[in-house]
Amino acid sequence: TSVDKGVDFAQYFCTYAFLYHQKEMLSDRVRMDAYFNSIFQNKHHFQGKTVLDVGTGSGILAIWSAQAGARKVYAVEATKMSEHARVLVKANNLEDVVQVIEGSMEEVTLPEKVDVIISEWMGYFLLRESMFDSVICARDRWLKPTGVMYPSHARMWVAPIRSGLVDQKVSDYRETMEDWYNFTNETKTNYGVDMSVLTKPFSEEQRKYYLQTALWNNLHPHQVIGTAAVVKEIDCLTVTVNDILEVRSNLSSSIILEDTRLCGFGGWFDVHFRGRTEDPAQQEIELTTAPSIDNGTHWGQQVFLMHPSIRVCGGDDLNVSFLMKRSKENHRLLEVELSCEIKQHTGKLLPPFNKTFYIE
Amino acid sequence: TSVDKGVDFAQYFCTYAFLYHQKEMLSDRVRMDAYFNSIFQNKHHFQGKTVLDVGTGSGILAIWSAQAGARKVYAVEATKMSEHARVLVKANNLEDVVQVIEGSMEEVTLPEKVDVIISEWMGYFLLRESMFDSVICARDRWLKPTGVMYPSHARMWVAPIRSGLVDQKVSDYRETMEDWYNFTNETKTNYGVDMSVLTKPFSEEQRKYYLQTALWNNLHPHQVIGTAAVVKEIDCLTVTVNDILEVRSNLSSSIILEDTRLCGFGGWFDVHFRGRTEDPAQQEIELTTAPSIDNGTHWGQQVFLMHPSIRVCGGDDLNVSFLMKRSKENHRLLEVELSCEIKQHTGKLLPPFNKTFYIE
Ligand SMILES: Nc1ncnc2c1ncn2[C@@H]1O[C@H](CSCC[C@H](N)C(=O)O)[C@@H](O)[C@H]1O
Ligand SMILES: Nc1ncnc2c1ncn2[C@@H]1O[C@H](CSCC[C@H](N)C(=O)O)[C@@H](O)[C@H]1O
Repeated sequence: TSVDKGVDFAQYFCTYAFLYHQKEMLSDRVRMDAYFNSIFQNKHHFQGKTVLDVGTGSGILAIWSAQAGARKVYAVEATKMSEHARVLVKANNLEDVVQVIEGSMEEVTLPEKVDVIISEWMGYFLLRESMFDSVICARDRWLKPTGVMYPSHARMWVAPIRSGLVDQKVSDYRETMEDWYNFTNETKTNYGVDMSVLTKPFSEEQRKYYLQTALWNNLHPHQVIGTAAVVKEIDCLTVTVNDILEVRSNLSSSIILEDTRLCGFGGWFDVHFRGRTEDPAQQEIELTTAPSIDNGTHWGQQVFLMHPSIRVCGGDDLNVSFLMKRSKENHRLLEVELSCEIKQHTGKLLPPFNKTFYIE
Repeated sequence: TSVDKGVDFAQYFCTYAFLYHQKEMLSDRVRMDAYFNSIFQNKHHFQGKTVLDVGTGSGILAIWSAQAGARKVYAVEATKMSEHARVLVKANNLEDVVQVIEGSMEEVTLPEKVDVIISEWMGYFLLRESMFDSVICARDRWLKPTGVMYPSHARMWVAPIRSGLVDQKVSDYRETMEDWYNFTNETKTNYGVDMSVLTKPFSEEQRKYYLQTALWNNLHPHQVIGTAAVVKEIDCLTVTVNDILEVRSNLSSSIILEDTRLCGFGGWFDVHFRGRTEDPAQQEIELTTAPSIDNGTHWGQQVFLMHPSIRVCGGDDLNVSFLMKRSKENHRLLEVELSCEIKQHTGKLLPPFNKTFYIE
């Protein structure tokens, strides 16, 4: 699974080199508050300590760590954003504490081991981007045996939802196919070439695009129609890359709304800042990306649509088997297999269904 | 100037692997009619001949060449679209004539030299994508000394235009900067970090995005306010890659509308199918992407905006020096330097101005 570095830059890192993109993250109040509070309400983890910020971007977490009293902060960033981070550190008079290092985490060398590793590595549905691999690598190489991870824990959640997006996406797909039929007719009439043999691969391509690609969405809490379930718990201090290559889980959820429609599933995550058992946080902080009216984040939720949607009732039980793995073509993207069995409150068992989704 | 193949696939070829994208090209009636007519109104170039289609995509040009009577057609395609092309060839009963070869043109080996090279290699403003390099390479290796190029000639055009896009883009840019100032204030107030040192690089990034990136646009002919000028003429039979690495030209244009505003320049291209001097087309065909009410193409025009716009009058003369080169980071993208001097019909000379644009 060796990754071409040039390709990885072209496909992944490139966006992070734009201040515009860093600004979007820096404008996410829920995200910012969580990291800010986790640092400034737990200064004992930082005062006089050495810190490594994995993927420092604009430098924000490194700067806060220094402001909280760190003795030394190593701020590693793979892209040219490192130059802006360096300027920002200087403008905030922290150049004696924060050392910005341009390079990929896997390749840089630090002069010493660190007491704290801080990083904002979370992608859509937690693991998209696979950046946590780089944090694990940093931890295994540079964290002292007594060191602390910021955040310390992470969880992935799934819940059944209702959503008008199903009907919209199905109708978008149908329209695209209508258009395709007109196109094949015209190509035959005007240009003497029969394209109808491509109808099947075209429809598969479009189904994948409209119906099998997970959607970014900020769900309203009322759209969640059943109990949410944890599909993965991660202890950032001990997890290995091998543990997160695949996420496999059997979960159950009970429908909690009377008479509604199951339109699919929503996926989100939370992370916690708890320090370490022997050296706990004074104030535990949570960052959640669950559906929320006032505290939405730039991560939103990932929505996996089911079609046709299914009528369900309070008390119906869902048995879901969930499997997420990395895409073969791009290790930073994900594929999800969801199968679901519904046991109605009447005791009747509906035939199970199976879907594959792409988190692109 | 060696290009990483993996990166080139990730950045360039990938889109061509979607039927959706091929369909967009196949739905461009102006494009389709031009190639269709160039082949079927010049059957003498195809009957009993060997043909190479460089970048066959869905296979359309190869299929037409075969239908026009070619003895053998080699259809080379770098992406997996080759598999669809093969199926399409078979469904149209041409598998004995058309041989689809998956591979990049630079690397494949043909069993023989060919009489005709046909290719639809034109990108925005003709040279974006730099795919013509691959056609030149194919020509030098595989075209018989008596062979014919389809198309045989190409030209790039530039003309002064008026456009409401200037005001729109300037106001988008201003809004983005307003937002940035709010952002830096809030970051300072809420999170104790002063980001104002990044204002300059952020504004440069956004100026580039909003004001210096050439825009795709289907101009109305009335938006062209002066005479159009050719900045480059290419004879596809003799041109070398070296000849198109840079396009440099001094051109003049006269304003033809009374009392209007110069908002920038539009760039487009045309290609001709004329055969070869010793073996000319029976029917010359032109494919133009000039501003048009009824015959717009998916190429549209590239628009280079000037701000502030300048008041001009009928009879004012523009002296433009034009330089286009490839982007250092990506040889398939372009950079344009335009400088313009206005000599008013009164004889007064306005101070010259200079702009750089990116065709991304
Ligand atoms: N392996 C790696 N080595 C160095 N930097 C990396 C990396 N993987 C991802 N990054 C960088 O990590 C950053 C993640 S975004 C978070 C930025 C910043 N810490 C903040 O909280 O605002 C990006 O800038 C990305 O370029
Ligand atoms: N060097 C190269 N070798 C092989 N194929 C190439 C190539 N450069 C570009 N291509 C292919 O050329 C095609 C250009 S688009 C034109 C497709 C088709 N001839 C038509 O007219 O509809 C794309 O499918 C692209 O993948």
